[in-house]
Amino acid sequence: MNRRMVLYMVGRILQIEALLFLLPLVCALCYGEGSVALSFLICAALSFAAGSLLTLARRAKTSRTLYAREGFVIVTLAWLSMSALGALPFVIEGAIPSFVDAFFETVSGFTTTGASILTDVEAMAHGLLFWRSFTHWVGGMGVLVFVMAILPNEGGGRSIHIMRAEMPGPIIGKLVPKIRDTAKILYLIYVAMTAAEVILLLFGGMNLFESLVHTFGTAGTGGFGCKADSIAGYSSYCQWVICVFMFLFGVNFNVYYLLLLGKLRSVFKSSELWCYTAIAVGVTAVVAVNVSSLYSSVSEALRHAAFQVSSVMTTTGYATTDFNLWPGLSKTLLVLLMFIGASAGSTGGGLKVSRVVLTFKLIRRELQKLVHPRSVSVVKLEGKKVEEQTLSNTAVYVMVYFVLFFVILILVSLDPIDFESAFTATAACFNNIGPGLASVGPAANYAHLSAFAKLVLSAAMLLGRLEIFPILVACSVSTWKKR
Amino acid sequence: MNRRMVLYMVGRILQIEALLFLLPLVCALCYGEGSVALSFLICAALSFAAGSLLTLARRAKTSRTLYAREGFVIVTLAWLSMSALGALPFVIEGAIPSFVDAFFETVSGFTTTGASILTDVEAMAHGLLFWRSFTHWVGGMGVLVFVMAILPNEGGGRSIHIMRAEMPGPIIGKLVPKIRDTAKILYLIYVAMTAAEVILLLFGGMNLFESLVHTFGTAGTGGFGCKADSIAGYSSYCQWVICVFMFLFGVNFNVYYLLLLGKLRSVFKSSELWCYTAIAVGVTAVVAVNVSSLYSSVSEALRHAAFQVSSVMTTTGYATTDFNLWPGLSKTLLVLLMFIGASAGSTGGGLKVSRVVLTFKLIRRELQKLVHPRSVSVVKLEGKKVEEQTLSNTAVYVMVYFVLFFVILILVSLDPIDFESAFTATAACFNNIGPGLASVGPAANYAHLSAFAKLVLSAAMLLGRLEIFPILVACSVSTWKKR
Repeated sequence: MNRRMVLYMVGRILQIEALLFLLPLVCALCYGEGSVALSFLICAALSFAAGSLLTLARRAKTSRTLYAREGFVIVTLAWLSMSALGALPFVIEGAIPSFVDAFFETVSGFTTTGASILTDVEAMAHGLLFWRSFTHWVGGMGVLVFVMAILPNEGGGRSIHIMRAEMPGPIIGKLVPKIRDTAKILYLIYVAMTAAEVILLLFGGMNLFESLVHTFGTAGTGGFGCKADSIAGYSSYCQWVICVFMFLFGVNFNVYYLLLLGKLRSVFKSSELWCYTAIAVGVTAVVAVNVSSLYSSVSEALRHAAFQVSSVMTTTGYATTDFNLWPGLSKTLLVLLMFIGASAGSTGGGLKVSRVVLTFKLIRRELQKLVHPRSVSVVKLEGKKVEEQTLSNTAVYVMVYFVLFFVILILVSLDPIDFESAFTATAACFNNIGPGLASVGPAANYAHLSAFAKLVLSAAMLLGRLEIFPILVACSVSTWKKR
Repeated sequence: MNRRMVLYMVGRILQIEALLFLLPLVCALCYGEGSVALSFLICAALSFAAGSLLTLARRAKTSRTLYAREGFVIVTLAWLSMSALGALPFVIEGAIPSFVDAFFETVSGFTTTGASILTDVEAMAHGLLFWRSFTHWVGGMGVLVFVMAILPNEGGGRSIHIMRAEMPGPIIGKLVPKIRDTAKILYLIYVAMTAAEVILLLFGGMNLFESLVHTFGTAGTGGFGCKADSIAGYSSYCQWVICVFMFLFGVNFNVYYLLLLGKLRSVFKSSELWCYTAIAVGVTAVVAVNVSSLYSSVSEALRHAAFQVSSVMTTTGYATTDFNLWPGLSKTLLVLLMFIGASAGSTGGGLKVSRVVLTFKLIRRELQKLVHPRSVSVVKLEGKKVEEQTLSNTAVYVMVYFVLFFVILILVSLDPIDFESAFTATAACFNNIGPGLASVGPAANYAHLSAFAKLVLSAAMLLGRLEIFPILVACSVSTWKKR
C-alpha cells in the first residue's frame, strides 16, 4: 500500500474542494448573506490548509505508482473527508446545528442521493442552498474524475484505477486512450448539458438561482431543491424539462460521446440504452393508467407518472406529487425502479441497467448449463464478449448488494419506525434516490431518525455511490499492510 | 426429452398419492366422519386411475435413460399434479369450496409452507386436518425421494438427476453409492425422528391426533396445525419440544447419518451446522432481550424468542405468540431469517445456510481479486474444494432468487394490500415459511387475497420448495424439443 500517494491524492481533492467553496461564497455575496459568505471563506481556508498539509506526504522519492488497491482507498478517503468538510458550512452558520445532521445532508449531496433532514428548506440561506445542490453536481460525475480532467498525470499513468473505483457500472470504457482526455470529454458533455438545462429552465420563468439549483440536482441525479414541495409548484413546462433531463442524465455518457462522433449506428445498437428506455416508457405507461383516477386529465396523470418514474429510476428523487399516496402497484413498481437504477456510466445510482441485463443473461446461461452440462456459451453485451472475470464480478456484486441491503435494513430497524419506512429508507439511501415511502416519503424527511440511523444511512449512501467494493477494500485489514 | 419416461414417472407418483390418501381416510373413519372418508376414497380412486393411465406411456422399447432435463421436468410436473389432486378432498367435501383456495392450501402443504386461507381451522373435520398436515410430512423429505426409496431402479440408474432436482441445497451428497440406499437411509432417519417427536408430545398431554398433526408440521417444517392460535395454547413443555424438533429438522440430514456412523469428528467440523446453530442462538438472544418487556419473566421471553426464531429460520411457521406485535428490530431479524432459511439437505426452505456461507466466501474472494487481480484462490466448504461450476451456480441462484422475489412482489402488489403485507407474504411463501407480518401475520391468514394473488403465491411456494431451476427449466421451450 502506497500510503504517501494516497494521502497526497486526498490532499489534492481537499484543495479542489477549497476552490469549490468559492462558488457558494459568491452566491451568498450576491444575496447579501455576509455571515454565510464568511462561513464558506473559513471552510475554504480550512480545506486548503488541510489539503496542503496532506500533499506534503509525497516526497521526491515517493513512488508514484498506484494500483487498484490505492485507487479504492483514495476514493473512499476522499469522499469521506470531502463530506466531513463539506458539512462544516451548515454547522458554522448554525443552519444545521448538529454535525451528524449536516454530515448526513452533505453525504446525501455528494452521493447525489437527495435525502434531507431539513424540515423547512425554504428558510435556508441562498448560499447554503446553492452549496447543497452544487454538491450533487460535483458528486454526479465524480470529484476524482474532475481532478484527473484538470490535473495532468496525477495518477502516475495508472489513474484508470481511480476512475474505475469512482465511476459506476460493471465495465468502465475508456473513450480515448488517455484517461485524462476521457475525463475531459465526460466533463465537457456534462457542462454542456447542464448549461442547456439552465437555459431551458430560465425560459420557463425560473430565476437564475432556482434554475441553477434544480439543474445541479438534475444533472447529478441528486434531488435537492429549494422548495418544500419539490417541483410540484412549478409550471408543467418546467416539470417536463426536468423530467426529460433527469432521463438524459441517466443515460450512459459514452452514448453522448458516440453521438458527438456521429456514430449513430453504435448508439442505436446500445442494448443498455434500449433497455433503459423500454423500462422507463413501460413503467410510465402502467403507472399512468394506475393513477389516472387520482388526476383530472390524462395528460396530468401522464406527466406525474413520467416525472416520478424518471425521477426514481434515475435515482434523482424530485417529486411533482406525493407518490406515497399512490396505489400499491405504482408504489411497488417505483420501489423496483429504485433497485434497477440508471445506466452504467451515468450520474445515476442503483444496480444499473447493464448489471440487471447481465444478471438476466447469466441466469439464462446457467439454465442452459443445467440442461446441457457441457455446453459452452459466451455472454455478450453491446456486441462484445464479456470477460468471465467481469461476469463473476457482476454476480458477486449483486450478491453483496443484497447482503449489505439487509445489514443496513436491520441497523435502520433499530429505530422505532415502521417496516415500510425502514425498508424504503434503506432502498432510497443505498440506491441514492432520496425520498422513500411512508414516514420518509416525498412529503416527509429524515429528520425524525436517530443519529445512529443517520450515520448508517450516510454509510449506505456512500456504499451505493461508490458501488460497495472500494469501501469494502478500504475497510479490510489486508489492504493496509505495508508492501 | 424423453417424454414417455416423464409421463411414466409422474404416473408412478400419482399412484403413490393414491396410497397416501388412505391414511387420512383411516383417520376420518376413526372419528366417524363418513363423508370425509368417502371423499378420500374418491380421490384415491381418481389418483390411481390417472396414475395408471400415465404409466402406460412407457412401452417395452422406451429408453429408460433420464438426464438432468427429464429430472427437472418430472419433479415440476409431479409436484403440480400432486397438488392439484391433493386439493380435491377439500373441494369434494365442501370444506374449501373454491378450487383455487384448496390448491393454495395443498401447495402450501406439500411445499411445507404452512400459509393458510382457512379462517376457522378448528371447524375442519379431523380427516381433512390430518391430510393437510400429512402433506407437510410427504413434501418435507420429497415425494420423489420416497419413490426412489421404495421402488427399485425406477430412474434407470440415473435417478441422481431426480434427487438433485428435488433435494434442497447447492451440493447434493450421495450418502452411499446407490441412490436408492441414500433415499432409504434419509427416510429411515426421518421416520425415527418423527416417531420420537410424537412420543414426546404424547407425554406432554397432547392426544394422538394433535401429536401427529403437529409432528407432521414440525418434521416437514411446514406449520399447519389444528388450533386457531397455532401452538400458543399448549404447555411450555410442548412448546419447547416443538421448538427443539423444528431446529433438528432444519439440520442437514447428512449430519444425522454421520452421527449414526459414529463419525463425531466430521459432525463437529461441519461449518454449516456451526453457522446454523450460531445464527439461531445469536438471533434468539437478541430477540429475547428486545421483547423482554412484553413478557412477565425472562424464561417466558426466552421461550417465545427461541420458538419464533426456530420456527421462522427453519421456515416452519408455527407461533406461540403474535410476533407481528413485536418491536421493529425483532420483526426485521425474523424477516432476515426468512431469507437465510435452514440447512441444505434438511426439510427447511429459504436460501439455505450453506448458500449464504458460500455467498460470503465468494464475496471475500472477489475482494481479494480486486486488490490482487492475479491471485488464485479456492473456495472450500466442509473442508472440501467447491467446484467453480457449483460456485457460479450458487451465485446465479442467489441472483435469480432476488429477481424472482421482486417479480412475485410486484404481482402480489396488484392486490390492494399494504407494502408490509405484500413484502412479507412474498417472503413467507417464496421461502416456505407460512405467516408473514401485518395482514398476513401469525394471527391472520391469506383468505383476503384475490384468486390471482393466491395463484401467484402458490407458484412462489413451488419455486421456493423446488429451488427455482427445475421449474424454470420445465417452463423453457427448448427443454421440450424432441431429441
